[in-house]
Amino acid sequence: MAHYSRLCTIVIDVPEGDHDKELDFWEGAIGRRLTRNERFPEYHGVPLVDQAISLMVQRIEEGPGRVHLDFHTDDLEAEVARLERLGARRVQQAHRWWIMEDPAGLPFCVIPDPPGTLNDGNAQRWE
Amino acid sequence: MAHYSRLCTIVIDVPEGDHDKELDFWEGAIGRRLTRNERFPEYHGVPLVDQAISLMVQRIEEGPGRVHLDFHTDDLEAEVARLERLGARRVQQAHRWWIMEDPAGLPFCVIPDPPGTLNDGNAQRWE
Repeated sequence: MAHYSRLCTIVIDVPEGDHDKELDFWEGAIGRRLTRNERFPEYHGVPLVDQAISLMVQRIEEGPGRVHLDFHTDDLEAEVARLERLGARRVQQAHRWWIMEDPAGLPFCVIPDPPGTLNDGNAQRWE
Repeated sequence: MAHYSRLCTIVIDVPEGDHDKELDFWEGAIGRRLTRNERFPEYHGVPLVDQAISLMVQRIEEGPGRVHLDFHTDDLEAEVARLERLGARRVQQAHRWWIMEDPAGLPFCVIPDPPGTLNDGNAQRWE
């Protein structure tokens, strides 16, 4: 019998003490509210509509394995500053992008895309 | 000045010793080859075309924060067995789903979806 599967959800797992600020941060970071699941209230979620996602595997030199998320943006400095205002912090610049940490200390990156590649059809607009 | 951003990439960060089996596993798990980035050869990636992704935040009771990925499937046992053959292992069943670990020990989940909700248009078919 054939069956189907799809990679479906990115889950940010966060301890109680960091939960509320983490939820606020990620809602702000993507510009959408995450709805609490009624049956499993420890989960808040929202579909990332129309946002094509890539899966990558990165070879790292040290430290344990982990999963991290990348934002792409057409204005690196504006986006990093926006995320800082939401509670993230800069860790270091690597190549063309910034490595940041979210309020629970989870790493993520902000990557500059070429001008003109992001628009109202494929990205979130920030005024 | 307005700018745009979008949550764009899920990155599996994996130490050298686990890298090759991890890459093989994730290629098999999604049924697509990940292409090596020429400029940054430590990265292999592929767009998850037409696969709508959700972002969730989960409150956890203990342990450090982390990011994990979920698969959805219309045949839980077949999908878990498929992923076991690729090198993942079952950790425990929770509610309706299975918690598994990939070859580098990173946790992910396999969630059953109602029959009929996955098809050739929104998921990967496994014979």
